[in-house]
Amino acid sequence: MRTIYEGDSTPKRDGYRMPAEFEPQDQVWMLWPHRPDNWRNGAKPAQEAYAAVARAIAQFEPVTVCVKPQDYAAARYVLGEEEGIRVIEMESDDAWIRDCGPTFVVDGQGGMRAVHWHFNAWGGLVDGLYFPWDKDELVGVKVADLAGADRYRPDGFVLEGGSIHVDGQGTVLTTEMCLLSEGRNPGLSKAEIEGYLNEYLGTEKVLWIQDGIDPDETNGHIDDVACFVAPGVVACIWTEDEENPFYAQCQAAYAALSTMTDAKGRNLKVHKLCMPVKPVYMTQTEVDTIDVVEGTLPRGTEDACIASYMNFLVVNGGVIVPQYDDENDGLALQQIQGMFPDHEVVGVRTREVVYGGGNIHCITQQQPKASLG
Amino acid sequence: MRTIYEGDSTPKRDGYRMPAEFEPQDQVWMLWPHRPDNWRNGAKPAQEAYAAVARAIAQFEPVTVCVKPQDYAAARYVLGEEEGIRVIEMESDDAWIRDCGPTFVVDGQGGMRAVHWHFNAWGGLVDGLYFPWDKDELVGVKVADLAGADRYRPDGFVLEGGSIHVDGQGTVLTTEMCLLSEGRNPGLSKAEIEGYLNEYLGTEKVLWIQDGIDPDETNGHIDDVACFVAPGVVACIWTEDEENPFYAQCQAAYAALSTMTDAKGRNLKVHKLCMPVKPVYMTQTEVDTIDVVEGTLPRGTEDACIASYMNFLVVNGGVIVPQYDDENDGLALQQIQGMFPDHEVVGVRTREVVYGGGNIHCITQQQPKASLG
Repeated sequence: MRTIYEGDSTPKRDGYRMPAEFEPQDQVWMLWPHRPDNWRNGAKPAQEAYAAVARAIAQFEPVTVCVKPQDYAAARYVLGEEEGIRVIEMESDDAWIRDCGPTFVVDGQGGMRAVHWHFNAWGGLVDGLYFPWDKDELVGVKVADLAGADRYRPDGFVLEGGSIHVDGQGTVLTTEMCLLSEGRNPGLSKAEIEGYLNEYLGTEKVLWIQDGIDPDETNGHIDDVACFVAPGVVACIWTEDEENPFYAQCQAAYAALSTMTDAKGRNLKVHKLCMPVKPVYMTQTEVDTIDVVEGTLPRGTEDACIASYMNFLVVNGGVIVPQYDDENDGLALQQIQGMFPDHEVVGVRTREVVYGGGNIHCITQQQPKASLG
Repeated sequence: MRTIYEGDSTPKRDGYRMPAEFEPQDQVWMLWPHRPDNWRNGAKPAQEAYAAVARAIAQFEPVTVCVKPQDYAAARYVLGEEEGIRVIEMESDDAWIRDCGPTFVVDGQGGMRAVHWHFNAWGGLVDGLYFPWDKDELVGVKVADLAGADRYRPDGFVLEGGSIHVDGQGTVLTTEMCLLSEGRNPGLSKAEIEGYLNEYLGTEKVLWIQDGIDPDETNGHIDDVACFVAPGVVACIWTEDEENPFYAQCQAAYAALSTMTDAKGRNLKVHKLCMPVKPVYMTQTEVDTIDVVEGTLPRGTEDACIASYMNFLVVNGGVIVPQYDDENDGLALQQIQGMFPDHEVVGVRTREVVYGGGNIHCITQQQPKASLG
């Protein structure tokens, strides 16, 4: 497969755009959790949760789960021989394909390519979550090759897929907390970063939310805060409980989005999506089964886990939504059903994924239909 | 993907057959050599030869090269970013996908499935070439999954792809030396083995050659001795030099084939294919760079390597033929061109592959077009 380096060309120059997540997809990619210094109990509970997510997606479209070679046989057993789930080997450092995987772009004429961003484990040597990250950095190549897609490689530009959402019609939504962080592209101005986004996503306009809800892990990825649910329509996390650890960020994001217009000049319509009533914390017993390794961000009992219903995945005809055994679980499903009246909304219990630092959107990467217009 | 175990059904019962190698193909699969106890100089010269074979095939159809995770980056560099070569990760014990990979079968209605034979490293604990072989044993699952093919798994039946050739019209060609060997299916009679072949290849008639030319390694695989070049037409190795180490086997195989009729009742037409004039031996210097490891068949300077021009691969519009820097190299190409007048015949220098115990046919496995009639 061919690599197109920065300078040779960009998706925008070649007529490619990133489709919105709600546009038709060919399949979803996942990695398989393994590292015992991030996941409790040797990642076994997390693997069950990942498998439940894979099975939920497979009801709507094919899933490829990429597993470390030593996990191949066990993963294949856990995932079962279900129609629609394919297991293949792939080395990785951890299991967040939204962030280390490629972003697919299409040209409206049957062409599909992959943008392979630089990945530095959410902050590199400044505030990255582990070291090294060389295997994650190769996931973009491997998935692009498996998908049969030529690959754009922006020289030096660091980005994770979870830090952006697009409407497929020229608009990209992101956060300043993440994209302007010191650990990613400190040499670039905000305007230069907008330039990269527009060139590589095929967009025209960048909408900036100030803060995300997890300054420590992803530096505030947008995919826990807000997303497009249709052109001109976004969802935003919301709570009126001033005691909620994310109250301020919810209020600020909602207020900001409510004043924004997209690339087509539409005023955004903003749906509110509830937060769990009870913040999620790990117990000491749970934390105790996570290996302590120098260089990996340690887990503790004192910080609220980043449990947001916003971290859902839209698939063909379905929406796969995190559930936390919280009293707002049902309300979240109901609100999302309201945003996607033609989709089947499926909840999956993913507390174990949250313990590792993300959720359904973070552990999946959609591959759009190459035939998209 | 689904597995159909013996007893549930067989390809023949479901209307599937193995196409001949000269029928249209979708792609070719390869593994990547690695083990330093089989390949000289850390497998680096062999890797160059494998890459040359991959590039030759890629002129005609796509190739997927499956490499051990630790070799991924280096293999990708050696193979280049050429159109038509895809590199993916896959664990294996060695690099003979003809033998440990699946055999694809088609049903004439767009269906393709894989037969995943049991593999025991050419003889298991009786006279197998290395131990263990668990990673090779999984290659059949993995390739079938990657190809999107449901998989037949004959309970307990041991077979390597290199020990059979089919004409796609009901006939399978094999050797007694291999299929009746003690290390494979010692509990089965010749008639029972014929039953397995016919059920899993969708054939009607088994043609038996007595001996292959390498009793020690593959126990005499047919793919160094003879193959179908068209329905009713075979090629057979041939030498009139009584000093040639394979003189007796050439004469016997030719004589046997000349009297045979295929499943359709046709008398076989037999083409002669020359042998290298000078048998290939490894030098002591070459042998010295191979790790000596208990459990792996050691290499020496005294035995002639199994250098046969017969170990070619037919692809769409091409034939990829071993070359040994021997004075018969050109004659072999010319004879094969005569057998395949509409194909482009391409020679590749593969002495380094022979050193490891096989050649182009052994290191490749074709995936037929699912749309075949």
